[in-house]
Amino acid sequence: MALTIPIKRAIYEANDAKAAAIHARLAARGVFTVNILGSPGVGKTSLISRLAPLIAASPAAGPLRVIEGDVASDLDTQALRALGVEAYQIETGGDCHLNAAMIEGILGKMEIPDNSWLFIENIGNLVCPAEFVIGEDLKLVVASAAEGSDKPYKYPTVFAKSAACVLTKTDIAEAVGFDEEFFRKGYRAVAPEAPLFVLNGRTGEGAQALFGWMLGIRAGG
Amino acid sequence: MALTIPIKRAIYEANDAKAAAIHARLAARGVFTVNILGSPGVGKTSLISRLAPLIAASPAAGPLRVIEGDVASDLDTQALRALGVEAYQIETGGDCHLNAAMIEGILGKMEIPDNSWLFIENIGNLVCPAEFVIGEDLKLVVASAAEGSDKPYKYPTVFAKSAACVLTKTDIAEAVGFDEEFFRKGYRAVAPEAPLFVLNGRTGEGAQALFGWMLGIRAGG
Repeated sequence: MALTIPIKRAIYEANDAKAAAIHARLAARGVFTVNILGSPGVGKTSLISRLAPLIAASPAAGPLRVIEGDVASDLDTQALRALGVEAYQIETGGDCHLNAAMIEGILGKMEIPDNSWLFIENIGNLVCPAEFVIGEDLKLVVASAAEGSDKPYKYPTVFAKSAACVLTKTDIAEAVGFDEEFFRKGYRAVAPEAPLFVLNGRTGEGAQALFGWMLGIRAGG
Repeated sequence: MALTIPIKRAIYEANDAKAAAIHARLAARGVFTVNILGSPGVGKTSLISRLAPLIAASPAAGPLRVIEGDVASDLDTQALRALGVEAYQIETGGDCHLNAAMIEGILGKMEIPDNSWLFIENIGNLVCPAEFVIGEDLKLVVASAAEGSDKPYKYPTVFAKSAACVLTKTDIAEAVGFDEEFFRKGYRAVAPEAPLFVLNGRTGEGAQALFGWMLGIRAGG
């Protein structure tokens, strides 16, 4: 939304302060919070459903809780619950991103054990969610081969702000004309140090490498 | 962006007034303006590149001008120019949608003949652009099979506000598990009267039907 700079700044500052308080409360209890970003339909929920069994199978990892953000519907929350994942829905009713106030609201309705993983799936939107911290330890951006190779060039902010990129649907790269080298070059330009993980959301291939990296980050690596 | 209602209303009202003035000026000269919406990478530029030769080959259709909206880069404008299409770039520098002021700005730099087609490719974003009129005669929403079948359920506004939906990448429907019946049911629920066109952006199959429909709408059908 095109706003004058002072209004924008006030909105961001209020949100930042609330997000910092959320993060402090969660981190004090050992909760590790991941803000998952990406366009509609790139496989954000699939990513969560692939990490969930790895977390469940890793005794030291701690429990998992998920917050699902959507403009409308609770389809993803239902899908995750059907897999045995404790998921909670935020329906923004039109808003294009999650903000710290929404997270604060739903946290009041959830029971989150100490040392949990907390995955927050943001609204499917490659622009606005990147502008708002919501109490996370880190952001992950999910990009799909079906979206095309030019996304880091066209939407640099979300790639630059994320600690890692997860590239999905590369099994259909040829069918959609995806140029992985061009994608990687663009990603490297905006996020020179950040890793890129390739994940097949349908088979789970690649999830273990991503999970291992997240364990390392969580442990302070 | 979550704003208080009065601020939102003031922004929308100012934008609506400017958009109405743009539309009046263009329509008075017979220019037919189409606002093309959809997520990143669904094939909005491919759609334009498939319609361009049909417009060029149709003597009565009139010339074509294109405005390309992106957060960053002018890759799409360059691609269209390489095909001989007269395209002009708006880089929003972060903003998540086009607004009427941006269109007014670029129209001052373009030469648009009477009776032109004016295609405006909005920012890749299934949420925010639907909230802003920019002087168009109609909106088209492009959705890709690769995005998944649930998009009309999760992002109802953009589908409800568009005069038609263009469904792309159905050639990979099986590979990505796309359920076209579920998609159509969701689209029908929010847009009961609007047509759905299936377009293969790589081969052009389906473009003629869409073009025929647009000719009919333009002629007042």
